[in-house]
Amino acid sequence: MKPITSFQDLTSYLKGQGCRKRVAVVCPYDKNTRDACLRALEDGFADLLLVGDPDTISEDARFKEFSDRVTVIAADSCDDAAAKAVALVKSGEANVLMKGLINTDNYLRAILNKQTGILMPGSVLTHITAAQMPEHGRLLFFSDAAVIPFPTLEQRKAMVGYMAGVCRKFGIAVPRIALVHCSEKISEKFPVTIDYIKIKEMAASGMFGDAVVDGPMDVKTAFESEAADIKGIDSPIGGLADALIFPDIEAGNAFYKTITHFCHAENAGMILGTPVPVVLPSRSDDADSKYYSMAAACLISG
Amino acid sequence: MKPITSFQDLTSYLKGQGCRKRVAVVCPYDKNTRDACLRALEDGFADLLLVGDPDTISEDARFKEFSDRVTVIAADSCDDAAAKAVALVKSGEANVLMKGLINTDNYLRAILNKQTGILMPGSVLTHITAAQMPEHGRLLFFSDAAVIPFPTLEQRKAMVGYMAGVCRKFGIAVPRIALVHCSEKISEKFPVTIDYIKIKEMAASGMFGDAVVDGPMDVKTAFESEAADIKGIDSPIGGLADALIFPDIEAGNAFYKTITHFCHAENAGMILGTPVPVVLPSRSDDADSKYYSMAAACLISG
Repeated sequence: MKPITSFQDLTSYLKGQGCRKRVAVVCPYDKNTRDACLRALEDGFADLLLVGDPDTISEDARFKEFSDRVTVIAADSCDDAAAKAVALVKSGEANVLMKGLINTDNYLRAILNKQTGILMPGSVLTHITAAQMPEHGRLLFFSDAAVIPFPTLEQRKAMVGYMAGVCRKFGIAVPRIALVHCSEKISEKFPVTIDYIKIKEMAASGMFGDAVVDGPMDVKTAFESEAADIKGIDSPIGGLADALIFPDIEAGNAFYKTITHFCHAENAGMILGTPVPVVLPSRSDDADSKYYSMAAACLISG
Repeated sequence: MKPITSFQDLTSYLKGQGCRKRVAVVCPYDKNTRDACLRALEDGFADLLLVGDPDTISEDARFKEFSDRVTVIAADSCDDAAAKAVALVKSGEANVLMKGLINTDNYLRAILNKQTGILMPGSVLTHITAAQMPEHGRLLFFSDAAVIPFPTLEQRKAMVGYMAGVCRKFGIAVPRIALVHCSEKISEKFPVTIDYIKIKEMAASGMFGDAVVDGPMDVKTAFESEAADIKGIDSPIGGLADALIFPDIEAGNAFYKTITHFCHAENAGMILGTPVPVVLPSRSDDADSKYYSMAAACLISG
C-alpha cells in the first residue's frame, strides 16, 4: 500500500476499496455534521445509522436520496440517542461512532458507562489527530490534544502503540514517532523524559512493531535535520517525523490550535481505545474537518 | 507612541531615538552573533562591550570600523568572560547582556551566582519571546518557552507583570494578555485554571496596570473571535490577543517551535527579572533572530 499523504488521498483510497463502513451518528442536527454525512454517502465509503429525533433528522431532505444506505433510529433525547448509538457499536452493527449536536460530556458518558458503555477493560482512551497543512507535504499525526491531561507511563505506552497502528493504516510501513519535550536532555526535573527512556526501550524490544521511536526532542528537531545537527543530535527520526507524541494535553492542544489558526491546518480527529474509532469533533470544527474525521475513522476501523 | 508592529518598525524606532545602549556580549566568536552585532552598530542603537579572547574577537576585521563604539574586554576563558560581562551589568556599565558562543549553563551560572551574579532578591527569571509571522499583522509576545518549567502562582503573576511591561515598551498602551489553557473551563483537575482566576483578580485590582487579562482560553480562541462565539465565550480579548501566557514550558516551547518551523516565524527572545534584559539565543538561531533579540532588549532596557 502506498502511503496516504493527504485527505484527498484518503478519500480516494476509501472510494477505491469499494467497502462501506457503518457509521452511527448521534444527533445529526447541525449543518456541518449533515454535510459531512452527505459527502461520505456520495463518496460511497459509509452507510449511516442516524440516531436521534426522526422529525429533526428528516428536515434534511438530502438524506432521502440515499434511503437504501441510511437508517434512522428514533431516540427520545440526546442521551437516549447516545446510548442507542453506543449499543449499536456494542452489538457490532456500527463500525464507527460519531458525534453530532450533543454535548461532549453527555456523549462521553454514554461511551464510558460501566454497564452499557464500550470502554474495554484495561484499555486507554486517547485522542489522535491527523493534520494536513499546505506547506507540509504529507499528513502529520499527533497525540493527545484532547483527552488525557497528563499521561502516565502506561498511557504514553498506549499512545505510542495506537499511533504506530494508525500510521500503518495510512500506509506508513515504518512510522517515525517523535517523543516531544521542550529539550533533548534527559532530566529528573522532567519526569516525562524518564518515561521516554522507557518507551524507547519498549520500542527497541519490538513492542510497537516496526517503528522508529525517538526523543526527547522538540517540535522543530522532529522536522528539521539541520536543527538536530546544530544541537549535535543524531536521531533516527532524521527530521522526518510522521507523528508526534506530546508530553501533556497543554502542549498537544497548543500545537493543535496553533497549526489550525496559523498554518491553515485541516484536521481529522478520533478517539482510540474503544472497540471502534470514536469521532468527537469540536463545536468549532467545520464540515470538512468532520468529513475527514469520519473518513479517517472509516479507514482505521477496517 | 505608535505601536511597534514588526521588527522593521522596532529597528526604525530605535534608530529614530538616537540613543545608544551598551550591550555586553559574552564570547562573540560565531558568525551569527558577530553579524547581529555589526548590524546593531550600523543601525546606531548599540555600542558594544565585547568580552572574551581579544585575538579571537579581532579575527573579525569589521569591528575595526567602529573602534570608537566597540570596547574589547579581555577574558581568559568563557567562564571568565561571562563573569566579567555580568560585572559590567552590576556596575551599570552595560544596559543589555548577550550570549555569544558559550554554553548556556555556564552563561546562566554567572548570572545566577549568589555573590557575583545579578539575580535580584525575590525576583522571578522568565523568558519572553516576540514573534513576527508573515500572516500575522503584528508582533505576538509569549511566555515562557525556555526558562520556568511549571510556573507557580507567584511566577505566573511575575510573567504577566513582565509581559504587560514589555508590551507597553512596544507601544501597546492596553495590552491584551490571554492566559492559555487547553480549554475555557475552570477545573480543579487543572490547577492552572485556578491560578488563572487569581491572576484575573489581580488584574482587576490594577496590579498589572492598564491591561486586559483573560482566560483560560486556547490559542485559537485568543486570535479568533468566531471561535470564541461558537464556544459561547464572551472575552474582552475578543480574538485580538497581543500576548500569550502559557501554562507550562512544554506548551510554550511547542508553540515556539511550531511557529518557527511551520509559520516561518522570526523571533526575538530575552530573559527578564534581572537588572537589565538578558539575551540568550538558541544555538540554532540565525543572525536575524540574534539581531532582533538584541534590538528588543535595547528597547526594553530603556
